[in-house]
Amino acid sequence: MNESNSQPLEGATVGVFLAPEGTEEIEFTESRDAVADAGATVDVLGSEPGEGRTVNDDLEESESYAVDETFDEVAADDYDALIVPGGTVGADTLRTDEDGVELLEAHLADGKPAGVICHGPWTLLEADAVEGRTLTSYHSLESDLRNAGGEWVDEEVVTDDGLVTSRNPDDLEAFCETIVEEFAARSD
Amino acid sequence: MNESNSQPLEGATVGVFLAPEGTEEIEFTESRDAVADAGATVDVLGSEPGEGRTVNDDLEESESYAVDETFDEVAADDYDALIVPGGTVGADTLRTDEDGVELLEAHLADGKPAGVICHGPWTLLEADAVEGRTLTSYHSLESDLRNAGGEWVDEEVVTDDGLVTSRNPDDLEAFCETIVEEFAARSD
Repeated sequence: MNESNSQPLEGATVGVFLAPEGTEEIEFTESRDAVADAGATVDVLGSEPGEGRTVNDDLEESESYAVDETFDEVAADDYDALIVPGGTVGADTLRTDEDGVELLEAHLADGKPAGVICHGPWTLLEADAVEGRTLTSYHSLESDLRNAGGEWVDEEVVTDDGLVTSRNPDDLEAFCETIVEEFAARSD
Repeated sequence: MNESNSQPLEGATVGVFLAPEGTEEIEFTESRDAVADAGATVDVLGSEPGEGRTVNDDLEESESYAVDETFDEVAADDYDALIVPGGTVGADTLRTDEDGVELLEAHLADGKPAGVICHGPWTLLEADAVEGRTLTSYHSLESDLRNAGGEWVDEEVVTDDGLVTSRNPDDLEAFCETIVEEFAARSD
């Protein structure tokens, strides 16, 4: 990054995961907007070309959003940071995409930062990125993350060596503020 | 059971779990109908009085079904067998109901049979009933069940000491046939 830029994420490229359906809309839009507003270039990453259909707080279908790149078209080197939103069905689907899981695994193995919220940490689990980490998630995932070797805590936002996690949409303000700070600190 | 009865589950009472929303409709209805058609009395068990709204194969909202008893009103002694259907959101919710989890845990600890399909095994995991068991589930749960100490296999129906598991709605024919056989064998 060019440190003379005024915005904290100027020059950074952030990939935001989007499932074919069932991603929680505000977790996707608010985290995407937070990093874009901080100056980042954002790529929406999905399993297939086209659009991902999100769900709202009442688990009803909501807006669709365009996928910019599919997981098999990109590499960990392409991104300074990654974001994995939740939504029960969306997160349950993303964890089964081998290319998406490999991207997240390689990205974290390179020591680069990520923000993962709500049911998103299932994909961290598949990426073998939970063992030895302190993290949080939607409360239903506590047993899964503890069984995978994580130290699960009940806090609105947790940062562990570049990995930022939060519990649910009510934590979005703290989550968005923290991912911008953490992504900026690690993109310098 | 009275062995002179002609139907395999005559005299047996089976509890079928139903989430407030998001239970997979055909996993609920077909397993319920299979044991009812075999002569069992069926109680639909839920977290709250009222109805549970199910989802169909396309993850769209479908019919609602009445809850007969809430988990906090019943005891393991009340049932000869239990069934836990899937549906991503429904199963993710059921696993967080402490009374439902305790009911399943006590039931299995008594050596009584259960049928659990698709995403339903998350509730088995919360009931500490996975370690040392051979079982299957929807494929996205494989890591969670292995991390909980289970031997996960990719088969349409698996029976382990009274616990019958299947992967998804395509396995329903084998699942329904096997739960009736297993429940009958253990209710004699």
